Formats: sequence, C-alpha cells, structure tokens
Amino acid sequence: MKKFTHLDERGRVKMVDVTEKGITLREAKATGAVLMRPETFQMVMTGGVEKGDVLGVAKVAGIMGAKRTAELIPMCHPLNITAIDISFHPIQQENKIEIEAQVKLKGQTGVEMEALVAVATAALTIYDMCKAVDREMVISDIHLVEKKGGKSGHFLWRGNEGEGSRRK
Amino acid sequence: MKKFTHLDERGRVKMVDVTEKGITLREAKATGAVLMRPETFQMVMTGGVEKGDVLGVAKVAGIMGAKRTAELIPMCHPLNITAIDISFHPIQQENKIEIEAQVKLKGQTGVEMEALVAVATAALTIYDMCKAVDREMVISDIHLVEKKGGKSGHFLWRGNEGEGSRRK
Amino acid sequence: MKKFTHLDERGRVKMVDVTEKGITLREAKATGAVLMRPETFQMVMTGGVEKGDVLGVAKVAGIMGAKRTAELIPMCHPLNITAIDISFHPIQQENKIEIEAQVKLKGQTGVEMEALVAVATAALTIYDMCKAVDREMVISDIHLVEKKGGKSGHFLWRGNEGEGSRRK
Amino acid sequence: MKKFTHLDERGRVKMVDVTEKGITLREAKATGAVLMRPETFQMVMTGGVEKGDVLGVAKVAGIMGAKRTAELIPMCHPLNITAIDISFHPIQQENKIEIEAQVKLKGQTGVEMEALVAVATAALTIYDMCKAVDREMVISDIHLVEKKGGKSGHFLWRGNEGEGSRRK
Amino acid sequence: MKKFTHLDERGRVKMVDVTEKGITLREAKATGAVLMRPETFQMVMTGGVEKGDVLGVAKVAGIMGAKRTAELIPMCHPLNITAIDISFHPIQQENKIEIEAQVKLKGQTGVEMEALVAVATAALTIYDMCKAVDREMVISDIHLVEKKGGKSGHFLWRGNEGEGSRRK
Amino acid sequence: MKKFTHLDERGRVKMVDVTEKGITLREAKATGAVLMRPETFQMVMTGGVEKGDVLGVAKVAGIMGAKRTAELIPMCHPLNITAIDISFHPIQQENKIEIEAQVKLKGQTGVEMEALVAVATAALTIYDMCKAVDREMVISDIHLVEKKGGKSGHFLWRGNEGEGSRRK
Repeated sequence: MKKFTHLDERGRVKMVDVTEKGITLREAKATGAVLMRPETFQMVMTGGVEKGDVLGVAKVAGIMGAKRTAELIPMCHPLNITAIDISFHPIQQENKIEIEAQVKLKGQTGVEMEALVAVATAALTIYDMCKAVDREMVISDIHLVEKKGGKSGHFLWRGNEGEGSRRK
Repeated sequence: MKKFTHLDERGRVKMVDVTEKGITLREAKATGAVLMRPETFQMVMTGGVEKGDVLGVAKVAGIMGAKRTAELIPMCHPLNITAIDISFHPIQQENKIEIEAQVKLKGQTGVEMEALVAVATAALTIYDMCKAVDREMVISDIHLVEKKGGKSGHFLWRGNEGEGSRRK
Repeated sequence: MKKFTHLDERGRVKMVDVTEKGITLREAKATGAVLMRPETFQMVMTGGVEKGDVLGVAKVAGIMGAKRTAELIPMCHPLNITAIDISFHPIQQENKIEIEAQVKLKGQTGVEMEALVAVATAALTIYDMCKAVDREMVISDIHLVEKKGGKSGHFLWRGNEGEGSRRK
Repeated sequence: MKKFTHLDERGRVKMVDVTEKGITLREAKATGAVLMRPETFQMVMTGGVEKGDVLGVAKVAGIMGAKRTAELIPMCHPLNITAIDISFHPIQQENKIEIEAQVKLKGQTGVEMEALVAVATAALTIYDMCKAVDREMVISDIHLVEKKGGKSGHFLWRGNEGEGSRRK
Repeated sequence: MKKFTHLDERGRVKMVDVTEKGITLREAKATGAVLMRPETFQMVMTGGVEKGDVLGVAKVAGIMGAKRTAELIPMCHPLNITAIDISFHPIQQENKIEIEAQVKLKGQTGVEMEALVAVATAALTIYDMCKAVDREMVISDIHLVEKKGGKSGHFLWRGNEGEGSRRK
Repeated sequence: MKKFTHLDERGRVKMVDVTEKGITLREAKATGAVLMRPETFQMVMTGGVEKGDVLGVAKVAGIMGAKRTAELIPMCHPLNITAIDISFHPIQQENKIEIEAQVKLKGQTGVEMEALVAVATAALTIYDMCKAVDREMVISDIHLVEKKGGKSGHFLWRGNEGEGSRRK
C-alpha cells in the first residue's frame, strides 16, 4: 500500500530524504484557470496595451513564484530549476483564462510542486490585477497535467473520465 | 465605468498609489478547496497523528505564505497584517477539504490578496503532503468570501446564484 | 559638521534609530541608464511584442525589487511603501534607456534607497534580458533626483553644474 | 543573427531552457563605481574604524545580494554559486570607489548576473551608508569585465576602445 | 490562569490577533553567548583586521536577521522595526563572546522575538566564521533581558536567582 | 596551523571558494535545548492537541529555516539540501526540550550550518509559541554533534570531557 512519504514512522512530518536518488531529467506540466465576468474578460483581452500587461505581469510573477517553491511549501526540497515556461489560453465562451506551466530540471526529485506554484501565483496575480473591476473571480482546476522522470514513471492526467467521484 | 487600477493612463502597469488613503480596519475572508480520492481523504482524516499533521503543516504554510504576499504578487503593497486565521472543513461525501482564511489589518489598503494567498499556499501544501499517494488532486474554487473596510465598502460573495455564466 | 548616521560613537555600524521621528509624507525620485549598442537598442525598441516585454519585465522587477530594499541593504529600515512607479525613456541618439523610479510613503524615514534599488533592479533586468546579444552594456548614472519630506527637507539634484570634480 | 534568448517565438518572455547544457566551470567578473564628494571620500577612507566599516558592510551586502540574484532578476536561473569575492579600489584623485566582484560555479549557466548584482548591491550599500553626508553620489559604470566557461566562450571587456558610440 | 495565546479554543495554532492593540513604544533587549576554545578566542580578538571582521560580519547578519523575524518564526507578525543595535562583549577568562541586541518600534506588538533572532543569527554567524578552526563552539544562554511597552508591562530578567530549577 | 577560511590574505572576509571541491555525501547533526519553567513544560507536554502543536509548528519552522541558511548566514554557500529531519526530546526532570536536527546533501560543502540553523529556528519558535506564559525561557547548548563527509573527515562531539575550559 502507498504511504505518505512526508510522514515518518511515528506519523510526524519530515522532509523526504532524496539523498540517494539518481539525477534524472524531470519534467512537470500543471494547469489552472481564472474565471471572470464577461466584461472583465473583455477588458483583459482587448484594448491594446492593457491586454498584454495583465498577462505579462502574471507570467513574470508565475516564473518568479516557481523559483521560490521551497520557501513556500514546507517539505519541498530546494531545486535549481533549469526551465520554466508559462502560457495563457483565453477561452472566450467561458470567460476564463487557462494557465499552463511547464518546469524542467535534471535533479534528484520532481518539479510538480514548482509547476503548480507557477500556475497558482500567475492566477493570483491575474486576480490582483483585475480585482478593482471584479471581486468575484474564481481560481479553479489547478492540477498536475503530466510528469516525467524519476522512479514513479510517467503520469498523465486522464481528464474527466474516472474522476466523477471527485469533481462535479 | 470601473477601471483597472493597476494600469496607468498609457496602459502600463504600476503599483496603485495608496499614500493618501486613510487608515481603517480592513478584513478579508477567502476560501478554496482540495479535491482528492476517497482513499486519500481517508488517509488525511484518520490514522491518529497523520491527520493532524497534514493540516497542521498546511496551516503553518498558509499563515507564512500570507505574510509574503507582497513578495509574490508584483503589484501588492507590503502590509503588516495583524491577524491571520486559517481553518479546514473536511467534507467527507465529496472527499474534499475546504480551506478558509481570514486576515485583518488597520491600514491603507485591503487584505484580500493576503487571504487568497493564504488559501492557495495551504492548498498547495496539502497537495504536496499527499502527492505520493494521489497525483490527481485538484485545487479549486479559490475566491473571496467577504471584505470589509476601505472606501469600496462591504463585499459579500453571493454564492452560486447569478454566476452561472462563470462557473459550471 | 555632518556625521555618518550609520556609525555609532565608536565607529561601529548600527541601524539608525528612527523610533522618535514623526510620520510624514516621504517621496523620492531616482534615475539611471542602460547604455547599449545601436543594434541592441533597435532590438529593444522595435519588433512588435518584443519591445514591450523587455521593458515590461524590467518594470515588474524594479517594483518588486523596491519592496525588498530592507532585505538587500543591511542598514535600511523595513518600510511599507504605498506607491512605486517606474518609467523608461529611450534616447535613440545615445542608444540608451533612461529609467526613472518614484516611491512614496507616509512614514518615519525616507524612501530614497527604495527608489535607487528600483532603478538598479530594472537596469540589471534590462541587462539580463539583452545580454545574449550584447555583453558590453553599461549601467550608469544611478543617482537621486529629488527627495521630499522629513527633517532634512527638499533635495533636488542640480544636474551637471558644480559637480565637475565628481563626474566626467 | 543573434536573438534575445529570453523571448520565445511569439515574442513573449520565458526563462531560457538550460536543461541540456553541460556542467562546466563558469566564472564572471564585473565592476562598477561610486562617485562622491571629496569630503565624503575622505570620511570613508580615513578615521580609523569608520573606513573599514562602510566597505565592510558593503562587502557583506554584495556577497549576500549575489546569492539572491534569481529572486531579483525575473529570468535568472537559481544557481548554487561556489565562490564570490568582492574587492574595493579607492581612487583618490577621482573621489570614487571602484568595486569588483568575481563569482564562480560549476553549472549549466553563467554567473555574470550574479557578479553584476554583487557590484550593484555593494554600490547601493555604500550609498546608503554615506547618504546622510552626501546625497549627490552617483553609481556608475557597472558592466561585465570578463566571463569564462560555457559555449559562448571567453569574453573580455575591451575598455573604452570601440565603444565611443555608447559612452562619453 | 495564563494561556498560550497562539492556540485557539480547540488547541490549534493561529497568529495572535493584535488588530485592536494600541500603538505604543516597544523595546526589547536579548542576550546570548558563543563559547569557544582559548585559541579560537585569541584568533577572533587579535591579529589586526581579522578581529573586526568576524564580529563585523556577525553584526550585519544579526541586524539583517532581525528584519526577517516574521519570515522565520511562523506566528510572528511582520513589523517595521525602527532601531536595531547589536554589541559584542568578549569575556577573555571564559573564552566567550557575549552578544546583546536591542530592538525598538512604535507598534501594536512587542519586539522580543526580533531581539532574540538578532542574537541567534549573530551567534550562528560567529560559529560559521570560525568553524574551520573550532567545530566545538557552543551557542548558549540566549534569553530575553528586558522588555518595555505594551499591556504586559516591564519585564526584567532576574539573573540566576530563582531559576535554579531551570538552569544548571 | 589552522586558519580562518573566511578571511583572505589581507584579513578581509570572503566566501570560501569550494568550486574545485568534490561532490560527496555530507551529513551533519546538531542539537540544542529550550529550558523553561515546570508549568510551561507541563503545558507544552500535556493537554492533547496543544502538545503536538507547539512542537509541530517548531518542526516546520526548523525545516523551513534550514532551507534559508544561505540567506541568513552571510558566508554560507547556497545548497540544495536533500534531507532534513528534526526531533524533539522532552526531558521532564530538567523541564527542557532538546532539539536534534539532521541534514544531508551530496554536494561540495558541508551542511553543519544548516543543521545549526534548523535547531536555532525550532528553538526560537518554541520560545515564541510559549512566551505569553514564560518570558524566562533560555535557549542553550546549541552545538554540532556529528559531521561526515568532505576532506575534514568525521567529527563527533566528545560530550563534556575535555571541554571544561569552555562550558560550566
């Protein structure tokens, strides 16, 4: 049976010991979305310079946030990530902006938390940039999309199939 | 018409100038949820010490994250928050853990971003603590619940009513 | 005769005690420049999206850097700055980009270091964004332009006059 | 033709992917200067303990600043630098203090930004330590001096020759 | 009966709510010591420049550490401290260096943790600077010496009297 | 004769150059203690949830503190530690809680400072959590217990023997 690796034998938390793990290529991709009012979505997407700026600032924030994952998440190992990329996919009919972050590293442990922190920080920044016009935005569906490298093998998010018990 | 306060006249971003705003009591409450497999939920909720620890670590992480909001979110003002509280509400039938964060301050600007960052950091920490057993967890529904103080007045989240266009 | 306020009686450093200073409006404006090759200047200024991004990232970096002044400069007091603005002034005939930062606060001590750190961080970021095409860029002429508030009164940079002994 | 490596195909910024770059010895040397009034220069250089302290604090600040480069400069990779040295060269006839920083690492990417951040932070600290007696100091001529390692080869600053178009 | 103020009714931790506390002058003084071999003590205290540098670096580290107290200690409120001073008292006959830190603020909560963090960081820095010659140094007797301001009144450490049950 | 490795030839501080050191397994174990009143000790140790929380928060703080060693201790190299574990040993008859931290890494330099910072941060956090009921706690006996790896070989603390000159 699987066990929580952050809990030692007596159930107390500790940082997982990855000292003896091999150095392999690790990749992780995560996603998430910010849902907003149609007017807010329009303001983000149109109007010349403004458009670029909201997402531009969110992108910088997401990249910088990913680099600080080990400062924010208590049991994360400090890692020298070698690549971060963040892209935004505006979905007009749903008035939402999807965020995707991809992180890479040759190291001893995976980078899924870094990808998730990148998405969350970018989403929070979009919220901050737009909150003067829309306080009812919702940050949703932050999850891991894909993970490669390490002994746990390849993980690929299976979409909505089979997860009915967890998500509406 | 409302305007993005982070964008100056030419559409370029800047930090909003709150120098002349009055010092008033500011409060914000935000929420969010982590959805997981039934087995994961059981492992978090049962088994003696383990239960407390996952949420205990997440709580500490959320409080510490809130204090660093201005380092993570580019246009946020540094604030000396005077109270942060985070609580967890496990919802067994949905295998999800709801997180609520409340932040207070007597200051020149609101603390909604601090409350949202607290929720997001606690949620990401739950993910990190449990990811060895469940990589398909989803962080969802992060939004502002209530906001008091400041010239924008009282904001109260109206729940699902009237927001059909934004959320499934 | 004026004295270094960071040095105590025995010549040892300490943080200046501002506990009893009054809370007044403080403003500081600083400037600096990045000098580059004509081709680099052209690449920054032309080409659609690219142009905005170099300066856009530098602006975000400058704002975020200013907020961390007290972490970088050992004797600086932590301050909750209430406004930061950074603007760029490209000077084509000199192939240089001038940076100007303005910082405000109602507090017990001035914000000139915050304005200078904003300029320096933005300049270093421009360097980083362009260094693949030009390693010979020079960051120059970082200085205070104006300072208001506090008992030391109004300071206005007098330009090149009278400072021949210091600058070529 | 050379390209900005921080800009992806559509002109949007991203962190350069160095995942597949080899681990080689990287060295970078940067310089910069603080220009001040003759009286300020004298106060820094004479008077027993005071002298050492201004530059001593600046040295510590520069070393600590270099370690935080990836937190300040958005697209910089986090690096575990293995050596930093900072030295000061007071030039009496010009009333200026030259700063030189040298950084080393065996890693996948260069350390020129770390050397430049070290110089800038040390210069800003000298400014801060002396600003009570001289608000007209100027931080100038921050540039890369030498860079070794990596596929871009050996870079050596060519001094003032050939750069007449950029610097007076 | 006194209660732990960091624990809410159900025994779970939270940051103490100081929102409604008055702004008063707060002062705290803390102390601690580093014990070392006679030869190490001699090396720190003699030999020209070296002497000043170990303690000089430790002083800068202590001041910078105090400013980051709220980042290190989970339940501490972020505070804009207005004065920090650190002094060293070498005690030759015991081969130890005593450290004293004093912190001030006009604010809503006390600064004893800031003073203690200043002492601990300075002590750890002395250890780091000297560990190549002496790995058996001991950091000891870190405690609060005095505290003024706030509703809990004046606290003064009573020395060794009455504390026989706690310390050898 | 041994030399301070942080001091260069002219006695000025610098970060030790470890660029050419080999990558080997490094381990360090450090210890320290918090001494308190009997009533405080009882409150920490009894009462169901409270007990776990004081030490639980201290554990998280110690782990997070260790990861930030290079930000706090000026001459420390940034390191990607691969394991941190912290345990608490309450000693009822002395009303003290002993803290032990163990840190591991495969790298170019040792992790003794990381272990010491973990202990100090955990101890300061215990102080903070309990200071409302006991301001006279003392943090004591922080020292290295064991160190493996690197060219300096195996170090084991010899206990109280032979160190009479340093500790009462």
